[in-house]
Amino acid sequence: MRTRAAVAVQAGKPLEVMEVNLEGPKAFEVLVEIKATGICHTDEFTLSGADPEGLFPAILGHEGAGVVVEVGPGVTTLKPGDHVIPLYTPECRTCEYCLNPKTNLCQAIRSTQGAGLMPDGSARFSTLDGDPILHYMGTSTFSNFTVVPEIALAKIREDAPFDKVCYIGCGVTTGIGAVINTAKVEIGSKAIVFGLGGIGLNVLQGLRLAGADMIVGVDLNPAKIPMAERFGMTHFVNPAEVEGDLVSYLVDLTKGGADYTFDATGNVNVMRTALEASHKGWGESIIIGVAPAGAEISTRPFQLVTGRNWRGTAFGGARGRTDVPQIVDWYMDGKIEIDPMITHTMPLEDINKGFDLMHAGESIRSVVLY
Amino acid sequence: MRTRAAVAVQAGKPLEVMEVNLEGPKAFEVLVEIKATGICHTDEFTLSGADPEGLFPAILGHEGAGVVVEVGPGVTTLKPGDHVIPLYTPECRTCEYCLNPKTNLCQAIRSTQGAGLMPDGSARFSTLDGDPILHYMGTSTFSNFTVVPEIALAKIREDAPFDKVCYIGCGVTTGIGAVINTAKVEIGSKAIVFGLGGIGLNVLQGLRLAGADMIVGVDLNPAKIPMAERFGMTHFVNPAEVEGDLVSYLVDLTKGGADYTFDATGNVNVMRTALEASHKGWGESIIIGVAPAGAEISTRPFQLVTGRNWRGTAFGGARGRTDVPQIVDWYMDGKIEIDPMITHTMPLEDINKGFDLMHAGESIRSVVLY
Ligand SMILES: [Zn+2]
Ligand SMILES: [Zn+2]
Ligand SMILES: [Zn+2]
Ligand SMILES: [Zn+2]
Repeated sequence: MRTRAAVAVQAGKPLEVMEVNLEGPKAFEVLVEIKATGICHTDEFTLSGADPEGLFPAILGHEGAGVVVEVGPGVTTLKPGDHVIPLYTPECRTCEYCLNPKTNLCQAIRSTQGAGLMPDGSARFSTLDGDPILHYMGTSTFSNFTVVPEIALAKIREDAPFDKVCYIGCGVTTGIGAVINTAKVEIGSKAIVFGLGGIGLNVLQGLRLAGADMIVGVDLNPAKIPMAERFGMTHFVNPAEVEGDLVSYLVDLTKGGADYTFDATGNVNVMRTALEASHKGWGESIIIGVAPAGAEISTRPFQLVTGRNWRGTAFGGARGRTDVPQIVDWYMDGKIEIDPMITHTMPLEDINKGFDLMHAGESIRSVVLY
Repeated sequence: MRTRAAVAVQAGKPLEVMEVNLEGPKAFEVLVEIKATGICHTDEFTLSGADPEGLFPAILGHEGAGVVVEVGPGVTTLKPGDHVIPLYTPECRTCEYCLNPKTNLCQAIRSTQGAGLMPDGSARFSTLDGDPILHYMGTSTFSNFTVVPEIALAKIREDAPFDKVCYIGCGVTTGIGAVINTAKVEIGSKAIVFGLGGIGLNVLQGLRLAGADMIVGVDLNPAKIPMAERFGMTHFVNPAEVEGDLVSYLVDLTKGGADYTFDATGNVNVMRTALEASHKGWGESIIIGVAPAGAEISTRPFQLVTGRNWRGTAFGGARGRTDVPQIVDWYMDGKIEIDPMITHTMPLEDINKGFDLMHAGESIRSVVLY
């Protein structure tokens, strides 16, 4: 079949919206009509060429929601008409990782997914001239129709609005999951969130949901205060306005350091600050942000020997097929908010405007509506 | 009273064995006759002058066992004749840290202990000329008699031999506790221990006690193999004999990385290797060794984002008054071994020989017998 898609033709160039060929689903694959997709910093990271593992030409996009159109041979858990969210972290439920309750990093299709291919080692997309176009993160939601492995699709309720719950495919789950799955924050905890962009806001509301008492937001931009407060921030700190050492300031503010700190900036210096602002004896610091290639974190080992714990999270520690439908329920039940974070919507033709808004810092999330 | 003690008169000089004055116990303090004390690398670290927080003159030693001689006012949990192990990490059972199950770092007497003083801010030791001599780690077991806060004494069974269980006051508990309290290693785990000195051997036997399946020891000195095997090592790796990248070698050997890795070297480069040789998704790396002042650990944040966990441990995460008597029981019951690690004994007069043996790498543990 043919489908409209925004193709990343090469690094550093805008996406090109065009008709492409899409082969139907092979065994254990599913054809999905994408109804909405968010535009995430990770798409930008790859498109810019900064991602050393980026491949071109490819169809980016990993934060979508849509409807199953057709299933390939062997698919048993989905049928045409099911509403789904594609998962860049699949959940096969049979690999060594899926069977270990300590991780969500299913490895079932990792190598082909990283190579921009479906699990059988081939691509379903091609140009009208027949040249292959690679998949991206196994999802390629910047195409109106896409093929996704069955194990990389979360089935969700049919009354959930695509234009909002698409964000659960990445940012919402990453932020809330970092709190709930990775840190396992307890009621009454004190926490600090570094970076109040889309991920940071979702960490804030995850902390509110988990019953944290003190939720400190740290950002250089005070314009982010109102939205951050809406999502649960109780205290704001602008590092530019702190005299002296930021770690000492935060340790004083939290009366000894935070029980949990979260880096949602991707800046390795901030990651160090986050670790050192966590509480002696039991503080945990969670890295969410993606650092530039080659950047390294460092600290004195004394910080760890005195009881701090340095960790990271990917896709919020969520097992997508199991956890994503639950987060959709939380949204539908009003336990979490998404609507105020979807600041812009646009048709696929205007997808590059979504990237422009991101660069300009004007959007929290832009969503493409098909 | 007077007592014989080995005094650290100044940094970088041998200890001087002499008679010193010792005041009796004040409120909530206990006078202890030390029967045996190990000589630990931490004593050496301070004596050498490398410890930026080292103070002189002081009476070092923190790995002792002895008998209560006299208790000060207010002491309720100990009486003359009780057998005890002094604790450099106290357990007051009332501070914010003791009441938090995530940590063992009781802070009740931290500031005075760090300053070489008893909790009331004064020292009990002095020269025969009346000049004060500082305490060390709250224990000062290089004195035949010493005064220790009640909260820093673990009461142990009376049939346990002082010349062996003194080692539980530091090295044994640090190594075994890192496995049991900090890492909480599960039966069937794979583990790697970097550094097969005294701490490393105790990590090995902790892993054996915890039921680990694969216990890899890493050391540059193959002469350590027989003793390490006696304490549970199942595989030995000499980094000098590995061609190519040590991390890759260890990941291959453990079929994906170890569930738990332990640094018992204090070398920050080894700490990085230990982290990176732990398993993607769930590996935990525990720093036990004390690094040189100012040294920093580093890695790519990707190592943490893909599920590795970087932690540290002090005194093996043990709450001394609660856990040390249990470890003594394990020794008496034959669940753990100590005797082969006590390679040398000597009278107090020869204590500097114990440091010489440590420097020469000839001892695992030297113990001074009073
Ligand atoms: Zn994303
Ligand atoms: Zn899996
Ligand atoms: Zn020691
Ligand atoms: Zn305490």
